[in-house]
Amino acid sequence: MRSARAMARRARGAGRSKPKSSDATRSTLFDADPTLAQRPQAQSPLSSVRMGRTEPSVFAEFSELSDKFNAVNLGQGFPDYAMPDFVKEAAVEAIRADYNQYSRPAGHARLVEKLASRYSPRFGRSIDAYTEIGVVGGATNAIFSALVALVDPDDEVVCVEPYFDAPKIAADLMGATTIGVPLRADWAETAADWKLDLDELDDALTERTKLLVLNTPHNPTGKVFSREELEGIAEVVKRYPRLLVLSDEVYEGMVYDGLRHHHVGAVEGMFERTISVFSVGKTFSATGWRVGYAVGPEPLIAPLVRVHQASNFSTPTPLQIASAIAFDKAEEFGYFEDLTATLQAKRDKLCRLLRTAGLSPITPQGGYFLLADTTKIGIPTEFPLWEAPEDLPLRDRRDFAVCRQLCERAGVTAIPASAFFSFGHRHITDSLARFCFSKKDDTLNEAFRRIVHSGLNATWV
Amino acid sequence: MRSARAMARRARGAGRSKPKSSDATRSTLFDADPTLAQRPQAQSPLSSVRMGRTEPSVFAEFSELSDKFNAVNLGQGFPDYAMPDFVKEAAVEAIRADYNQYSRPAGHARLVEKLASRYSPRFGRSIDAYTEIGVVGGATNAIFSALVALVDPDDEVVCVEPYFDAPKIAADLMGATTIGVPLRADWAETAADWKLDLDELDDALTERTKLLVLNTPHNPTGKVFSREELEGIAEVVKRYPRLLVLSDEVYEGMVYDGLRHHHVGAVEGMFERTISVFSVGKTFSATGWRVGYAVGPEPLIAPLVRVHQASNFSTPTPLQIASAIAFDKAEEFGYFEDLTATLQAKRDKLCRLLRTAGLSPITPQGGYFLLADTTKIGIPTEFPLWEAPEDLPLRDRRDFAVCRQLCERAGVTAIPASAFFSFGHRHITDSLARFCFSKKDDTLNEAFRRIVHSGLNATWV
Repeated sequence: MRSARAMARRARGAGRSKPKSSDATRSTLFDADPTLAQRPQAQSPLSSVRMGRTEPSVFAEFSELSDKFNAVNLGQGFPDYAMPDFVKEAAVEAIRADYNQYSRPAGHARLVEKLASRYSPRFGRSIDAYTEIGVVGGATNAIFSALVALVDPDDEVVCVEPYFDAPKIAADLMGATTIGVPLRADWAETAADWKLDLDELDDALTERTKLLVLNTPHNPTGKVFSREELEGIAEVVKRYPRLLVLSDEVYEGMVYDGLRHHHVGAVEGMFERTISVFSVGKTFSATGWRVGYAVGPEPLIAPLVRVHQASNFSTPTPLQIASAIAFDKAEEFGYFEDLTATLQAKRDKLCRLLRTAGLSPITPQGGYFLLADTTKIGIPTEFPLWEAPEDLPLRDRRDFAVCRQLCERAGVTAIPASAFFSFGHRHITDSLARFCFSKKDDTLNEAFRRIVHSGLNATWV
Repeated sequence: MRSARAMARRARGAGRSKPKSSDATRSTLFDADPTLAQRPQAQSPLSSVRMGRTEPSVFAEFSELSDKFNAVNLGQGFPDYAMPDFVKEAAVEAIRADYNQYSRPAGHARLVEKLASRYSPRFGRSIDAYTEIGVVGGATNAIFSALVALVDPDDEVVCVEPYFDAPKIAADLMGATTIGVPLRADWAETAADWKLDLDELDDALTERTKLLVLNTPHNPTGKVFSREELEGIAEVVKRYPRLLVLSDEVYEGMVYDGLRHHHVGAVEGMFERTISVFSVGKTFSATGWRVGYAVGPEPLIAPLVRVHQASNFSTPTPLQIASAIAFDKAEEFGYFEDLTATLQAKRDKLCRLLRTAGLSPITPQGGYFLLADTTKIGIPTEFPLWEAPEDLPLRDRRDFAVCRQLCERAGVTAIPASAFFSFGHRHITDSLARFCFSKKDDTLNEAFRRIVHSGLNATWV
């Protein structure tokens, strides 16, 4: 797996040479993205100034391309198999029982009480159902609401990279500055090899940092942060009195190989400054339900809920009731164990298929996704692998070119991984692409068949 | 109806004496709300600066009070009867048919195509399903998304008052200035008597005004703007080249006495600058589904959808499919005619009951709500009716005191109408309260029984 090694070596160089940040180096390294001016002018002339600060979504481009080429879509993170019948029937029950009017903006009593009893032991404290939980319109809505509620234009938001784009988009809209601190690896055999350098994290944090965005199990690498890693991060965080943490834990129910998910909010002294975000959609294979929830101390949950109330008023009542019923039944049926086993088997299958096709995967420890090495896929020389300058626009980077070819010529959609990095770190994954494995076995088989049939996986000379 | 007459006379005085606005008078009249400093410090010290610009919601206060006193709740605008079975079964069908994953952020193809064919004749043009419609998380989400997408901190937002609070909250969060232009009446017998003075509207508009917020059928008065009234407004709007219109039309399906609903976006030259907002929740008595949609030109819908995508990603898929099915079946069954007839009967019933109780209603032409005269309700003298200074905090105003008494002593919840005004116009409805009539007949009867039994309606000396 030469590319992963090379990737890591170059990344290490890029990161480690950075001195303890002065304002000058910071703005060079992080803030000034010279590709900004080259972004497609997607915005309307009638829109607000803040809209011009957001980038076009990589998912919009590849969803469209995927549809156009009728591709097997391993791009977006949703199951293409049916959600469990017992959860569907819970929704049927709720709708027929007339749970169809507004609920309490912070969440229906039935759901917040269920969540409080479920998460109290996990966080090692008594969580108040009515002040320490906010039910919202999906994890995206939790993240967006948190950013609006907590972050001012002068603030900095530090994200561990690669990252899911929602916090970045919300920070951009709110006029805050996003700073990325990359996971790095000397040799990435499994997702555990991606490490966060705590000195590098400390370097990125300042008195202006309002929010640190964490994500475990991690999208797109599949890394599951260990208890020790989270304690190390917590120790750094506590050096900054005004620093808050947004912890995206939507894949908490998908951790493999007997590992355990850990909450950073459960680390000593961290509950008071952490919003932890979870997803009913991910947990019950119902990404289209748009039900999520946040757990944290009242001074963080109250403003988050207030923004949610302003943006959505409340979360669909029948789907909240269904979620409460689903958690009860899931515990009774052992659903969570089944989910883990099913997804672990799918992970193993996709790893095996990609390895056979010559696209070596970095085996994930958790979540829906894996990163795979695409250096075997030959592409025109205008998309450099080894010497891509950092200011190359995203759409001209090698991994974008590879994923476009995969879609157009093989009929398989994956997502270029450099889209998950901020300016300054995009070269780290020019050789990698993200594949989602929460798909039917037939879908995974068909993707393999198409890649091999296209011959793309053996075009590199 | 002495109070309505008096109210109107005083309001007229307050408004008409205003000269063509200079910046000095504007800031005195509109911007500087001396009650700001007295607002309960509900915000968390950890929250963003923008959170401090929002006011506590009147609905939060009265929902809590209503629960505490186990009151008959005529405060919040939702039906307490079941939504139609055919719409519930449409959702059951969608969930069982596995429409449970992410949809297209701008709305599922099935729903946007249905909406395009439904609204094209209404707007007198061919509406493009994929660029001129955005399906969002309820009308509140449409309004919030529009404000984030279109309004900058230096902009002014003009709202016809009294108003639903969502646009004001979103404008506050985005740092824009909200300016209210009140509906006024010399004598309010029916909601038609509330008139918008076009000179006063023109006075409030400037080159800095980015958005005019309209609402028809109107909450809380129940006024339905006539075609001529909308044409008059359009004529004023067209004098301001950068001015856009947000038209809240969530009660479009509830217009009584054979009147018709008119879209301001259908007035000549207005489509290009208007976002019209509609609600599946209101139309199908499913306020807890949180499905709404916006219709407008692509340069306005595209940024709105982009904000929606950032805040929610997409709208619950099964409820979108159910909405599409529901519109088809509703047209087939004549559901919309039934809805109008049912609600008109409820309006007539609540008007009759309130009149009998001595709380004269101003008969609404449309919507869910009516305003009723509360001068017969005696309250302590520290809550003045006739001489209330404008800078009296909302919570110390007479209508707040009346509604608290109604809740605590009669066990009936209504909403004080001054909460629907900006600073400078709150005195207009110190004598009025808002009642919702989309309730079971038994509920309306019980509210009447409680008011009469309490004797509150005859305590004024």
